[in-house]
Amino acid sequence: MASQPSEKQQGESAEQKKAYPPNNIFIGKKPLMVYALSAQLQLSSYPEVILRARGRAISRAVDVAEVLVNRIGKDVYKVDKISIGTEEVGEGDQKRNVSTIEIVVKKKQ
Amino acid sequence: MASQPSEKQQGESAEQKKAYPPNNIFIGKKPLMVYALSAQLQLSSYPEVILRARGRAISRAVDVAEVLVNRIGKDVYKVDKISIGTEEVGEGDQKRNVSTIEIVVKKKQ
Repeated sequence: MASQPSEKQQGESAEQKKAYPPNNIFIGKKPLMVYALSAQLQLSSYPEVILRARGRAISRAVDVAEVLVNRIGKDVYKVDKISIGTEEVGEGDQKRNVSTIEIVVKKKQ
Repeated sequence: MASQPSEKQQGESAEQKKAYPPNNIFIGKKPLMVYALSAQLQLSSYPEVILRARGRAISRAVDVAEVLVNRIGKDVYKVDKISIGTEEVGEGDQKRNVSTIEIVVKKKQ
């Protein structure tokens, strides 16, 4: 019983990922460069990538954006738009709000 | 010897704080509501507050902004501008880059 809600959450987040095109990168607990290089790869076929993170991963998303713009793609990529929001996670007693961030990184024209 | 660099860092950040007007709020390790209420107080005398954070405190800064805009000042305050950057901290071998965020929260007109 105890593992049911977490299984459901995992299912939800997997579904959520499926709904987004591949230039949406979900920042989690992997090393910084995994996300930065994956973003660079996407930027070779898309004009922009959207770095998405929730909760504590938000600071890592900012790190990824900074590495991408200042090191990997210096003079080539730029931060285009940053927006923040709140999402409800969990169910019943477990319900709580987490902050989210979306950072759009674009190729400079 | 070992404590010298950290003392210097503290001194720097204290100086840094002095240079900014009181509507600049530096997000650190205190509870969320300390910063949210301090921001609310500043918004009673200034048209905007700037929430500033570095490193891991970045996700807390986003939390503060969300609480401020969606709960404390619902329909009254809004997020105006978000910018990110990189700062160098430490000296010599200790030198490293940290990401920073600035979130401007404004009174709606």
